[in-house]
Amino acid sequence: MEILITNDDGWGSKGLTTLIHNLLPLGHLTVLAPDGARSGMSNAISSNTPMTLHHLPNREDMPGVDIYTTSGTPSDCIKLAVNVLFGGDSNKIDLVVSGINHGSNAAIDIIYSGTMGACFVAAEQGIPAIGFSIYDMDADADFSYMEPYLLRLTRELYEKGMPRTVCYNINAPKGAIRGIRYTRQCISHWAEEIRPLQIVDGEQTYAMTGYLVNDEPEAEDTDEWAVTHGYLSIQPCSIDMTYYGKMG
Amino acid sequence: MEILITNDDGWGSKGLTTLIHNLLPLGHLTVLAPDGARSGMSNAISSNTPMTLHHLPNREDMPGVDIYTTSGTPSDCIKLAVNVLFGGDSNKIDLVVSGINHGSNAAIDIIYSGTMGACFVAAEQGIPAIGFSIYDMDADADFSYMEPYLLRLTRELYEKGMPRTVCYNINAPKGAIRGIRYTRQCISHWAEEIRPLQIVDGEQTYAMTGYLVNDEPEAEDTDEWAVTHGYLSIQPCSIDMTYYGKMG
Repeated sequence: MEILITNDDGWGSKGLTTLIHNLLPLGHLTVLAPDGARSGMSNAISSNTPMTLHHLPNREDMPGVDIYTTSGTPSDCIKLAVNVLFGGDSNKIDLVVSGINHGSNAAIDIIYSGTMGACFVAAEQGIPAIGFSIYDMDADADFSYMEPYLLRLTRELYEKGMPRTVCYNINAPKGAIRGIRYTRQCISHWAEEIRPLQIVDGEQTYAMTGYLVNDEPEAEDTDEWAVTHGYLSIQPCSIDMTYYGKMG
Repeated sequence: MEILITNDDGWGSKGLTTLIHNLLPLGHLTVLAPDGARSGMSNAISSNTPMTLHHLPNREDMPGVDIYTTSGTPSDCIKLAVNVLFGGDSNKIDLVVSGINHGSNAAIDIIYSGTMGACFVAAEQGIPAIGFSIYDMDADADFSYMEPYLLRLTRELYEKGMPRTVCYNINAPKGAIRGIRYTRQCISHWAEEIRPLQIVDGEQTYAMTGYLVNDEPEAEDTDEWAVTHGYLSIQPCSIDMTYYGKMG
């Protein structure tokens, strides 16, 4: 199998290293990751900025793995990989795995996530894709509880197959895992998101902050409920954003 | 009515000016737009960069309109407006209208679109939202054919109402409009997206390019079919990305 690995926390992050180590038995791994943190980049692309592409030396702890970094976004990583590393033929890539993101991508966070953005580009290109995240933003997050699931779930979900527009958003809780739940995206929103900064030279600027509000806290079938109650959440998601329900 | 207007081509773009002029009869307009082009920003947010917020002088051709610009992204615009201009109360905003984007946001382009990204943040906040785009990337695009539809459709769709997670992606064809079609998102992908640039100081960099491939060109119910056949496409889309179909 030919597996392409990326993330949005950038090359060198603990989540990416953990993912690579665990997926080594799966086949040949190519890593193309941003050269630094790209959190909250969603599906942003470098439409007006040149992108670098660096081939890094092999690493002893990652035997046989080809490692590349770029100045681009997670979405750019998939586009660069398909077009430059694999000659424009997306069929040469069997699977994209993105993560492990330091921080949850459950609930509404999926639309801001660079980790999932990379999966959406893969799905666009017809490549099965899985994104892994953990409900812990610490740069030294403890992945030991989710590690036993990485290879197993990747294999299982890949073998099961994914429809053309579908990929997986997998979120692990912080700490021990009570079990696995297939979930839907929680209806939720961010609140108190803007914080005024100190006025410099008469100019008031603002920073992003805030917290997620679960708008259906009683619903036990959501991804947010799962990760906040100790369960690993598996959510199939689609890049077809059409609303097929009744309007008005 | 209190209407918040934004876009991703930035303040001063012809599409934004056209939108404002046409929506003046609808109620009180607040404009908060990026201070320059932010194309392909998707739902990116300025999570690590301070954002400016400038109140611009009133304009004679936009009577009663409050105009603000920011260094942030289209998604940031909605967050800044809700939290700074409207005191954190999204209920004070009746409707968000984003655009008119210079360039189509039909098919897979919806996931890369800053125009629609702003609508998704509005939907997250429970605010009805409509994004307008035209199938013409020219900075001097001719909006005269779609102008008669702007106020009418905005009114109609707002009065019809939108479910909590739903907003509208409206794309106009280039030139004359043969009619209106309610559509679904076309299955499609971008091809030949990466172009090598000249090598500078031994460093090879790459730029974004390419073209959209319609993977279901015969299907007449898609947004891509509509805009490429002279129809104005109205697509209801949802920020709930869960795939509810059968897997595997």
